[in-house]
Amino acid sequence: MVSANPILLPELRSLLADQDAAGIREVAEELHPATVAEFSEGLEDAELWQLLAALSPEQQAEIFPYYPLPRQVQLLEQADRSHLGPLLEGMAPDNRDDLLRELEPEFVDAILPLVAKAERHDIRMLLSCPEDSAGSLMTTEYASLPGDVTAGEAIARLRTQAPNSESIYYIYVLDHERKLVGFVSLRDLILAKPTTTVADLMQRDVISVRIDEPIELVVQKLARFDFIAIPVVDDHNRLVGIVTHDDVLDAVREEATEDAHLSAAVTPLTDGYLETGLVTMTWKRGVWLTILFATAAVTAMVLARTPIPHAWLIAFIPLVIASGGNSGNQSATLVITALSTGDCHLADWPRILRREVALGLLLGLLLAIPGFLLALLYAPSPAQAVVIPLTILSVVMLGSLVGSVLPLIFRSIGLDPALMSNPFVSAIVDVVGILLYVSIAFLMLG
Amino acid sequence: MVSANPILLPELRSLLADQDAAGIREVAEELHPATVAEFSEGLEDAELWQLLAALSPEQQAEIFPYYPLPRQVQLLEQADRSHLGPLLEGMAPDNRDDLLRELEPEFVDAILPLVAKAERHDIRMLLSCPEDSAGSLMTTEYASLPGDVTAGEAIARLRTQAPNSESIYYIYVLDHERKLVGFVSLRDLILAKPTTTVADLMQRDVISVRIDEPIELVVQKLARFDFIAIPVVDDHNRLVGIVTHDDVLDAVREEATEDAHLSAAVTPLTDGYLETGLVTMTWKRGVWLTILFATAAVTAMVLARTPIPHAWLIAFIPLVIASGGNSGNQSATLVITALSTGDCHLADWPRILRREVALGLLLGLLLAIPGFLLALLYAPSPAQAVVIPLTILSVVMLGSLVGSVLPLIFRSIGLDPALMSNPFVSAIVDVVGILLYVSIAFLMLG
Repeated sequence: MVSANPILLPELRSLLADQDAAGIREVAEELHPATVAEFSEGLEDAELWQLLAALSPEQQAEIFPYYPLPRQVQLLEQADRSHLGPLLEGMAPDNRDDLLRELEPEFVDAILPLVAKAERHDIRMLLSCPEDSAGSLMTTEYASLPGDVTAGEAIARLRTQAPNSESIYYIYVLDHERKLVGFVSLRDLILAKPTTTVADLMQRDVISVRIDEPIELVVQKLARFDFIAIPVVDDHNRLVGIVTHDDVLDAVREEATEDAHLSAAVTPLTDGYLETGLVTMTWKRGVWLTILFATAAVTAMVLARTPIPHAWLIAFIPLVIASGGNSGNQSATLVITALSTGDCHLADWPRILRREVALGLLLGLLLAIPGFLLALLYAPSPAQAVVIPLTILSVVMLGSLVGSVLPLIFRSIGLDPALMSNPFVSAIVDVVGILLYVSIAFLMLG
Repeated sequence: MVSANPILLPELRSLLADQDAAGIREVAEELHPATVAEFSEGLEDAELWQLLAALSPEQQAEIFPYYPLPRQVQLLEQADRSHLGPLLEGMAPDNRDDLLRELEPEFVDAILPLVAKAERHDIRMLLSCPEDSAGSLMTTEYASLPGDVTAGEAIARLRTQAPNSESIYYIYVLDHERKLVGFVSLRDLILAKPTTTVADLMQRDVISVRIDEPIELVVQKLARFDFIAIPVVDDHNRLVGIVTHDDVLDAVREEATEDAHLSAAVTPLTDGYLETGLVTMTWKRGVWLTILFATAAVTAMVLARTPIPHAWLIAFIPLVIASGGNSGNQSATLVITALSTGDCHLADWPRILRREVALGLLLGLLLAIPGFLLALLYAPSPAQAVVIPLTILSVVMLGSLVGSVLPLIFRSIGLDPALMSNPFVSAIVDVVGILLYVSIAFLMLG
């Protein structure tokens, strides 16, 4: 689907059979590394290593990160040790970090000696950053310059520094303590008079993130300022890396899928939907279904102990429960998305709760009217029918409140609000809703 | 939260009061346009126009798109006509297109004559692209060159062409019919010998999107190839624009929020959560709650007409319904996210259905066991208790099937699968689940 030539796999196989290294190199030079990865993914591991071995270390390191992570791990575990050192040294630090995080720590320790010492330090530093921090997303390959260099000299230096393509477009200006004092874009350098100094060209209002700040904040800043990359600094404002646009895009897409899965009570998948085995999938869904079953069992036990006092009320059980659950889902999702996009913050909680109470009241009244009309059809008298609209009003308000409070509580204790998934809100609203229903019925009808 | 100086708003106000245009220009030059927009957002419309009027047309056009869209619309409607022409001409075509799409067509027709003729053609072309197509996201500002130019000459030409910063990093190579034949990055131009021709440097394996292809595909390609921008072509492979990384990131974030809102049966908000008025919010939630209420009313009517035959079965109504709904939510969300990330396709439907049937069976069996144990506590005999595990198995399978089939049907008839929100799956599974429950109870217990 993504690119051009569907007959490339057989062609690759015949090049491999002929041991035509020159032919393979030519194909790899013609195509984008992502395309080479896509078409060679169908090869067996041994064939794939044969293909990679025909390429230069640079080409290998460019293509390798485009395989899916589980395949990268598998390839690494089966690799000839002699391939590993050059491959790991050549890979971009952020891609390498993504891969190493997937490996057993013992295996990482075993292969680290194959890598040059300078890179090893880098690897350890990136691996030490917590999973959802700016540091875990950053690369240590960036272009930097002192401020007193001229634009012409700067371009000449970039020609020799020339890191990978993603990090050459912003050049960060550091003082003698490596503190970040400004940045200049490659565009500005090209357009400037060659004799202007970088200090005169640079933007001094540098937007950066601290290495321990959450990825969410990195996303918000990069999106807000339309940057290609955002610098990452330590506590002393010293530049330690950059996070590039492509990794932010990947992080946002992954996060969106994870949040969607969480919101439906599925442990987020690590592989694709069709690649996840039935046993894994049963586990990832079953564990939450079982927990939700336990809360539903509580509802059943409540209902068995305090039965509905009048037969006509039974038919309304699903309706009462659905009304509370739907309103709770809405509130939970609205609050979770607003928190994660930075659209509102924990500190806004009094406003959020006021709004949700008001909305619960309005929406509850809205549904109470058709609820009353429907109840009139089945209740022995209009006075008895009032139980239904009163219950609906209560459960809809309850749903709004529970749905908005739970994500706020989760955020305040440092947990991902998305964990407070819709089925959980529904489950809680179910139990309390049934209690409300039974209580209101007893109070009104005895 | 995003940037540095929280005292800037009063400072801006005092600069405005002093009519200190030079001071205002200095502030605007020091800061990122997004920061200027952020801090001046608190000004009244008239003050804001006073601020913008003190700036150069280029600065105005850079800052303006960083205001929230509803504010941009409001500012435009209240603007002095003399401001509008230069502002609209200066804005990047994609930002301008985003804004104009928010205006009434009559208003657009009224202000278009204020814009230079060449820009007007551009505006009409972009506005004519359907809402969710590559064309609606693209900008017409890009750098292009013929292939026979040398690298040195190319850089010199870029200095004069120099479009905005986002579009200078890839230079597209066109033949004499403006057909896209390759591209070269600014990095490659800088690193190359000045005498090499662009044709020798360029990548010929150009990944592009067609102007009418859906945004989803643009996202998938840009993310797959880690591009800063992706070229957009017409049916004859002629370059018509580019989509840049920042717009893709915005589109992905918006889409994720919209999908989350849809999945909870909320019409996606156009303003922020806290900015959306209570009436609008009541409408955006109430309309779906009412529709879902109608389906729940059907469940109530079914249950009123075909009552549960044995009293102990009543307590299990919420549990049976929740089991089906939860399993349905899981399947719907998994299929919806897999379709939207490109992880699986409509053509995979036989595999998807086979998986979901198998999973429904496994998960149904998993929940049937505790269901049976719980039923033993309340059923008059173990033989009667069997109704509960049988029903649970059926509704969990039903949920998996309905949850996966509905998004596939929506996709196949060209609708957004995300419209098949979790509450709708639940609502359908509720009705059918109750029917199954009553039927199984009658069959087993008479």
